[in-house]
Amino acid sequence: MQITKFSIPEIIFGRGALKYAALCAKRLGGEKPMVVSDPGLREAGWVSRLFDVLTSEGLQWCYYEDVVSNPRDTQVAHGALFYAEHKADVIIALGGGSPMDAAKGIAIVAGNGGRIHDYEGANRIHRPLPPMVFLPSTAGSGSDISQFAIITDTRRRLKMTIVSRTLVPNISIIDPVLLTTKPHHLVLAAAVDALAHAVESYVSIIASPFTEVQSLKAVEIIAKSLPRAAQEPSLPVLESLSIASTAAGMAFSNASLGADHALAHSLGGMFDVLHGEVHSVLLPAVMRFNAERALTKMAQIGKILTGKTWRNDRKAALAGIEWLENLFSSLGMKHRLRDLVPDSSHLPTVCRMASHDACLLTNPRPATWEDLLAICEEAW
Amino acid sequence: MQITKFSIPEIIFGRGALKYAALCAKRLGGEKPMVVSDPGLREAGWVSRLFDVLTSEGLQWCYYEDVVSNPRDTQVAHGALFYAEHKADVIIALGGGSPMDAAKGIAIVAGNGGRIHDYEGANRIHRPLPPMVFLPSTAGSGSDISQFAIITDTRRRLKMTIVSRTLVPNISIIDPVLLTTKPHHLVLAAAVDALAHAVESYVSIIASPFTEVQSLKAVEIIAKSLPRAAQEPSLPVLESLSIASTAAGMAFSNASLGADHALAHSLGGMFDVLHGEVHSVLLPAVMRFNAERALTKMAQIGKILTGKTWRNDRKAALAGIEWLENLFSSLGMKHRLRDLVPDSSHLPTVCRMASHDACLLTNPRPATWEDLLAICEEAW
Repeated sequence: MQITKFSIPEIIFGRGALKYAALCAKRLGGEKPMVVSDPGLREAGWVSRLFDVLTSEGLQWCYYEDVVSNPRDTQVAHGALFYAEHKADVIIALGGGSPMDAAKGIAIVAGNGGRIHDYEGANRIHRPLPPMVFLPSTAGSGSDISQFAIITDTRRRLKMTIVSRTLVPNISIIDPVLLTTKPHHLVLAAAVDALAHAVESYVSIIASPFTEVQSLKAVEIIAKSLPRAAQEPSLPVLESLSIASTAAGMAFSNASLGADHALAHSLGGMFDVLHGEVHSVLLPAVMRFNAERALTKMAQIGKILTGKTWRNDRKAALAGIEWLENLFSSLGMKHRLRDLVPDSSHLPTVCRMASHDACLLTNPRPATWEDLLAICEEAW
Repeated sequence: MQITKFSIPEIIFGRGALKYAALCAKRLGGEKPMVVSDPGLREAGWVSRLFDVLTSEGLQWCYYEDVVSNPRDTQVAHGALFYAEHKADVIIALGGGSPMDAAKGIAIVAGNGGRIHDYEGANRIHRPLPPMVFLPSTAGSGSDISQFAIITDTRRRLKMTIVSRTLVPNISIIDPVLLTTKPHHLVLAAAVDALAHAVESYVSIIASPFTEVQSLKAVEIIAKSLPRAAQEPSLPVLESLSIASTAAGMAFSNASLGADHALAHSLGGMFDVLHGEVHSVLLPAVMRFNAERALTKMAQIGKILTGKTWRNDRKAALAGIEWLENLFSSLGMKHRLRDLVPDSSHLPTVCRMASHDACLLTNPRPATWEDLLAICEEAW
């Protein structure tokens, strides 16, 4: 076994855990938190709930919400200026993957200067970041756990993958109650994102025993909870999905991802599609592409998904992929690429960009841009 | 589900990982590490290997090895003076549970002043500790992962349990090669300690999905690896035991332990017995005591240990306990309490002390000191 690293934030998990946000910020030395969130969270009342918690602990705060889905380099630059102007000293992100990734981008530029583009790739951040406390409002992105930040380069129309241990927030406060105000389709899309994290990290070429156990736990929980979430997203089900998303976050943060996420980043950068909606389209095709190269592991996933014992690894692996396709279809999720992007003429460009994504490096089967194009064509 | 916390150090795991010790110390701002180890590690050559690594990165170091098995309050006090006199700025522990716990005690007093006794119990440390990098040389204690430190109060002849999130080292460097020079019986004793961590944390009343998955993984690996380790402690087997010990450490650090460890601390404080040798004696009796109150979980452990499916939870639980007793016996481990302590007249005192141990608070079945005495009598 190669030398491996495993790094996760301190985690506070449970219903009502939002109330610890101020104490956590203070424990990290914060006196003036910058809160990063978005209009949806504000309208749902969570931002003001957070303000109340901060105020009651005597903290002054400033608030930044210029964040869209697939957060942009320009928003990061504005946010870093905002942080400096308000003399903030800790960053609290409240939201899904977009506010959390925006907050990471802001932390990078606030702590290191320059432009966010300077830090694209792996391990290019050399100075400390402001302390970060993250409160995820979706069970999927795993940004509250991971050392990844994905920021859109608006000029090049691509998503930059930034990876650094310093991007692991200091504390992740996971309060499943925040999910209760989330639109139903976003809950499901986030759960599929978490499933993709679990599957891709499990078959990653740098998976370790520390990540594999988390990947499989996440697959197991999501396979059970996703159909129930589709029926009725009760708090116990949302809590289960939060546990799974956290486990998947621990796994992919340390084992990285694969071709599905490389393509998802590329598609998201070019067409601004919702990240969570890409995986129901791409994941089965990517799993089929990888199956032969990671047959034992893919069979293990198949066994968990189908809940059956299989004597033949290939059959188990393929049964798992079919099980997923049927699930996505029964949930009414998009399952053809043509439902997501306007026309197929851009696919070669998408695939060329994806072939440079850091996530592709850990895919169990090496993939050229032509391989990726074949995957996209299968999913078309 | 109650609000739960999960906190672990950054982990660097693998053969040869010791070489990262200097870089880790420097990353934490260290310029003059204080190395805490013991004569056994020095004689095996590991201490000088570590010095070479530190020197080659331009670090000056100072060295402290006044540490015995079941480290003492007096050694902690001397160590804290040593840290101050040498103007050290980071603590590197290299060794088993004893040097690591001694290093934690030294860090507490170095950072907070006073005597180590001032911090007995939970959450009584209020000021920051020096950064800590730990290199475990046994796969068992979990001290490199956990928020626990156990220090002997020499006057009261008891082990003080100190619990604080600040006792989680910043970085744990787990290099299984360090285990190759460990005497065989110590490898086995440490593995049984890790197994006790896994079992007790799994049935703990504050176990969470984040700890349970680690507990079960540890049980599974140890059940497979311990018999192989008894035959031939090859590097792959030692690596597996290290993975299991790390997983068990993640679990018990966050879910705490139970009656077996409460008694082990009390026995260790009074008779200076080797901590790792207590569990083969006590764990089966404690599992029997707990079985009815945690039957589903104990059955799960039984299924993993025996590798069989059982329709009846009670039978599965008891079969697991028997499987363990047979294993310990076949390994030639001590399995009667009378083999460990001179005479039974002190047992009431041992059990009264154990009834105040913090670990007992999370045992699934409440236990009075008389209950503990009955357990000891069963194990006598």
